[in-house]
Amino acid sequence: MKDVLEFWFDFASTYSYLTAMRIEEKANARDLCVVWKPFLLGPIFAKQGWSTSPFIIYPAKGTYMVHDLKRLCRDRGLPPFRLPDQIPAHSVLASRIALIGLDETWGVAFYKAVFEAEFSQGLDIADDNILRTILSELAQDPVYVFEQALDIKNKQRLKEQTDQAERQGLFGAPSFVTPGGELFWGDDRLEQALDSLIT
Amino acid sequence: MKDVLEFWFDFASTYSYLTAMRIEEKANARDLCVVWKPFLLGPIFAKQGWSTSPFIIYPAKGTYMVHDLKRLCRDRGLPPFRLPDQIPAHSVLASRIALIGLDETWGVAFYKAVFEAEFSQGLDIADDNILRTILSELAQDPVYVFEQALDIKNKQRLKEQTDQAERQGLFGAPSFVTPGGELFWGDDRLEQALDSLIT
Repeated sequence: MKDVLEFWFDFASTYSYLTAMRIEEKANARDLCVVWKPFLLGPIFAKQGWSTSPFIIYPAKGTYMVHDLKRLCRDRGLPPFRLPDQIPAHSVLASRIALIGLDETWGVAFYKAVFEAEFSQGLDIADDNILRTILSELAQDPVYVFEQALDIKNKQRLKEQTDQAERQGLFGAPSFVTPGGELFWGDDRLEQALDSLIT
Repeated sequence: MKDVLEFWFDFASTYSYLTAMRIEEKANARDLCVVWKPFLLGPIFAKQGWSTSPFIIYPAKGTYMVHDLKRLCRDRGLPPFRLPDQIPAHSVLASRIALIGLDETWGVAFYKAVFEAEFSQGLDIADDNILRTILSELAQDPVYVFEQALDIKNKQRLKEQTDQAERQGLFGAPSFVTPGGELFWGDDRLEQALDSLIT
């Protein structure tokens, strides 16, 4: 049995994008496994008194974040970073589909494609058509997947996953949780989180 | 002429402590110089609507920060991290003395000693006696240094330095500013900030 790191992410999170594009390679190099855990930051931010992203509430931080992302994308050989017009993205539909993908072989490819559409193409991932196109390109039937994603039980599953995130002390994304329940926050802690499983 | 990186710090900032304990070694290894820039986060936080540290306002973040600092101090061979009873520290007096130290050979030793007193011994750096002891241990006359530090011109200098920080877009500490005005935020960006001067 390989050790498993939980990777908690919200599609609206720019730094989750950075992690999504590199976590598999970093985990494979250490012979570790990753469980992708989509959740919604919105309800957690709301309890902190934030009605939107802190990058909107604190403009200096938002300006810096975009600059930081541009630098990091350049340094990591990713496509130039683009911020969509709609920020933060309404990530609930993409997250519901992501839960369906957890049990399917196309899951990780879907997550990465959604993040790329959002932050390298600047598309609005709340748009049904964008998500349908991504599913089609992964040889999935959008009608069938949407039906599962919008089922009341799946909606409830996303809510429960978000509640679980909060119970585990998560307050931002990306976050990493070890089998022992240790929390690491931020793309900058990815290596430390992975290494904590093997040392 | 060596290139120079500005290191903006507040003594109340836990992550500034991490940087203070390693920035000289990292800069020397790259043949770069560092200018230490003490400033006050308080007035900048106040304009963001925060009356105290975000680690107090957002308890989940505060709990995590302490855990993160403990891990990082352990991994870097620093003494066990201790959070003082009074957080955030009232760093204004230490910062005023820090400005005097900028022009003196004892400056950097003083900054590191203050950070160590605060986060490895858990002392309250707003206490005159702590600061006097540190100065004495550095063979400085506390009476003379306090007199300079509390001069109206020096108080004004700290205010201006804080205003300058805000004009440069700083919203947290530690922050690094290159000669070209590029901003990097957080101890996690120290290497990237230094490397940006040599590439």
